Parts: sequence; structure tokens; C-alpha cells
Amino acid sequence: MTPVMDIPALDAFLMDVFPQVAADFAVEDVTEDGVIVRLKVGEQHLRPGGTVSGPSMFGLADVAVYLAVLSRIGPKALSVTTNCSIDFMRKPAAATDLIAECRLLKLGRVLAVGDALLFSEGNAKPVARATLTYSIPPK
Amino acid sequence: MTPVMDIPALDAFLMDVFPQVAADFAVEDVTEDGVIVRLKVGEQHLRPGGTVSGPSMFGLADVAVYLAVLSRIGPKALSVTTNCSIDFMRKPAAATDLIAECRLLKLGRVLAVGDALLFSEGNAKPVARATLTYSIPPK
Amino acid sequence: MTPVMDIPALDAFLMDVFPQVAADFAVEDVTEDGVIVRLKVGEQHLRPGGTVSGPSMFGLADVAVYLAVLSRIGPKALSVTTNCSIDFMRKPAAATDLIAECRLLKLGRVLAVGDALLFSEGNAKPVARATLTYSIPPK
Amino acid sequence: MTPVMDIPALDAFLMDVFPQVAADFAVEDVTEDGVIVRLKVGEQHLRPGGTVSGPSMFGLADVAVYLAVLSRIGPKALSVTTNCSIDFMRKPAAATDLIAECRLLKLGRVLAVGDALLFSEGNAKPVARATLTYSIPPK
Repeated sequence: MTPVMDIPALDAFLMDVFPQVAADFAVEDVTEDGVIVRLKVGEQHLRPGGTVSGPSMFGLADVAVYLAVLSRIGPKALSVTTNCSIDFMRKPAAATDLIAECRLLKLGRVLAVGDALLFSEGNAKPVARATLTYSIPPK
Repeated sequence: MTPVMDIPALDAFLMDVFPQVAADFAVEDVTEDGVIVRLKVGEQHLRPGGTVSGPSMFGLADVAVYLAVLSRIGPKALSVTTNCSIDFMRKPAAATDLIAECRLLKLGRVLAVGDALLFSEGNAKPVARATLTYSIPPK
Repeated sequence: MTPVMDIPALDAFLMDVFPQVAADFAVEDVTEDGVIVRLKVGEQHLRPGGTVSGPSMFGLADVAVYLAVLSRIGPKALSVTTNCSIDFMRKPAAATDLIAECRLLKLGRVLAVGDALLFSEGNAKPVARATLTYSIPPK
Repeated sequence: MTPVMDIPALDAFLMDVFPQVAADFAVEDVTEDGVIVRLKVGEQHLRPGGTVSGPSMFGLADVAVYLAVLSRIGPKALSVTTNCSIDFMRKPAAATDLIAECRLLKLGRVLAVGDALLFSEGNAKPVARATLTYSIPPK
């Protein structure tokens, strides 16, 4: 699972295919077995009390696993999420960026599976965990 | 599981506690075992090609089960999602409202479980299904 | 999704490919959108107190969705489970058969998705619910 | 999350509360953030072709997270599984023990969450991954 896309390539791809939301995310690293992605938390991600909304956490996990897959197979915009399980374990810190540490667990011919731990930046205990399955289009 | 909140009460509660997103949703019905909720699909929910984004579908399922729980226990803003599993099964129709049919499967002292089928309005085949667990605050 | 296998054909197929466990199960019905399957609860499925074990409930849901898929696509022993989410909601009744009501939600070219409600026979409230994804082998 | 039970204490507890299946499992290690548990694969866990059955993999993940929780809170037989999501990613090796590496992600007052990677002994790529939620009884 050697990477075939680096940080600038992943950021550029995201801007190209998801222009509405790409500015919310930044690829922090391409790691040995996945990627690290930041959600730049803004007003649109918050709930009363300053906490980050569930759909925003889901969106971060979804983007992180998507980029982990693409970082290994190259830009294939047609990959689609087929399944996600997500556990919300702690309340995110108020108005603090979220960091997703994603590892790719399987990269098959038709399915890829990755999981992610989500942290409020600077906190050691994860606020959420998620596993996602992506369907990879045939060549 | 007799309802203790009706459609106007649920809509008003949503506007009160989630003012940022309440206008996106409308309670269509309080049913024998749950609720039916509409996502009024707008620009902010779309992806290229006009399809509805994954986070928007997650958000609809989350709100639907939340309202199903509240419709039976009354307004308790502190109920929080602890787990969600969601399967994306078909591509939603372009720029069409989504309808979530939610049924409450368990309403315990500390945990509630509900599932939802999501449809593009007017289509008989579901685009997604989801199950969510809510933690209910002690009295 | 017209059925192509009936009750005797499904029972016979199960005996043929899973001889170790086939005797534990009985297909009760092939329904409009799925199947109903019984787990004939015996000593090997019980936990202290007479309750049915988690793996036995998982196994029932797995077999039920498997048979729902096969009832529509015909006998393809190579279909494999790729994902399951399961919620345990109530304690099963002591030493009572479990009934799984399964509906097929998607039957695609490469993936099938079904869910199941599990009941202790004679009780109206489900003890568990599960969703499973099956990967279908290419022709 | 300092351990309060060691390997012999966990093995003895398992034998005490789950005598039917305890002999199938062995605690290999109590780690910094969880436990490592072995499934001693026997005839009763196999499917045609020698592969380990889905319910057996589910059972291993369930026991592993259970023991990870108990290793931190002490022996509380009443803890019950409320939710599991599991992904089957590769076919287990024929007639080879399975090893579950489990980490505890949350240990709350009423809910605990842990995940596990399952390996055929000696293989570096996981055959399955699972996340489980346990409900902890009030004191």
C-alpha cells in the first residue's frame, strides 16, 4: 500500500471534486497505513454550546477514509461510501479543530475498508471512532 | 409508546434547540411506532451531479430518530447520539427532497434505538438505511 | 425480487453447504421482500440463566439474510458476509426459539443488503436487530 | 485505565461465568490499552474448506472487548453487549488460531466502547475488525 498521491495532490483533488466543502479540510499527513486529516471547525459545524455537530464528525471520517483510499489507488472520483459505523464517545471541545487519524485496513479489488479515530486537537482521548467501506469502480 | 408530542410541538422544539438547521427539516407525521421526517434539499446538501451528500443523509437519519425518541419521552434536549450504522444503497435522485421513515425499536431507561429508511421522494426503493442509538439523560 | 427458491429448496441448500449447523435452523416462510427463519434453540445456544448467546443471535441474523439473498438469486454458495451491525436490545426469553424476520433492502450486482428483527417466539418486542451486507461473486 | 485483573484472573473469571465456551479462549496479554485474546480454533468453529465461521469471529471479538472492560473495572458479570459492528475483510487461514488485539476506547459510567482487529496467527493482515459497546450495570 505505497502512497501514489502526496499531500498537495490530495488537497488539489479534493478542491477539484468537492469544491463546496474542500476548504473545510486539510490533509495533515500521509502515513504508513493511511492519512491524517483536519476539519477546520467553523460556525457551520457547531451546535449550541460550541460543540461540533454529528454530521460534521461523520463528514470528516468519510473524507479521511476516502482520501486514504485515493492516496493508494490514485484519483478515482467515482469511489462511493457503502457503509459507515460511527461511535460518538465524548463531547468535542468547543470551537476546536478536529483531527482524524485514519488507517486503511483493506484495499481489495472492489471494496476498501478503513477506520478513523477523531480527536479535538490537543486532547489525547478520542471524541469518536468510525469505520467506513468504499466501493471501488471497475477499471 | 404513546406519543406525547405532535407535529407542531416537534417542529417548534427543533427550531428552539437546533436553530441553525431546523429550517432544513419538517416533521411529516407521527406514526404508530415512530415519525416521518422530510429533508428539504437545498444547495447546501448537494454534491456534483445534483446528488445529496452523505453527511446530509446522516443528518436526516440522526434528526429523525432523535425526534422519534422525543415524541415519546417529551422534550429532553440533552439526549445524545452514541452510535450510528448507515448503509448507502442507491444514489439519491437529483435535487429531490429526502423522506425518512423512522421506527423506534427500543425505548429503555438509558438507551433508545431506532432505525430509518431514507427515500428520494416519490421513489419506492430506499437510498439508505440507518440505525441509531441515543443515550437518555437521567431524570 | 421474485423468489427463485422455495422453503424446501432453501432448507436443502443449507443442509448441503453448512451441514454442521443446518439442523439448528428452519426456513419458516419466503415473504414478499425476504424470509422468516427459526433458530431451534438448544443447549449449545444458551448462556447461564437460559438466555440465548450473542454469537447465536449473530448466527441467526447472518443465516437469515444469506437465505433472503439466495431466495432471489439462486444457490450461490460463495456469497460472503462483508459487514454486520447488530443491536442487542432485550434479553431473549429462556430456552425459547428465536424468529428472524428478514427483508432484503438492496440486491445489486456485487452487493446485497438486508436487515432482520429477532424475536423470542411469542413476544412482540424484538430482542435484537441486525443489518448485513453480502458480497455476490461475479458470474 | 490501569488494569485491576491480570491474565490468570481473567481466565478464571471466564471459566466461572461462561463455562460452556471458556475453554475455547485464552487471554494472551493485558496491554497498555486493552487485551490480546486467542481463539483456540477447533472443529466446532470451522466451515467447509477449513475457514473459521462468522459467529466464531463475532464471539472472539465479543469476548475480547468484554475482557478488556473487565480488566479495568473488575469482575462484573452483568455487563452486556448493546451493539457490535463487524467487517469481514479476508478469509481466515484454514484451521489456524485467531488472535484478537483489542483496545478500550472509552470507559464511561454507563457505556464502554472497544475495538478489535482479528488475525489468523502468523499473518500480518487482519481477517476482520469489530467495534463493540458494553452497558455497565449501576453500582
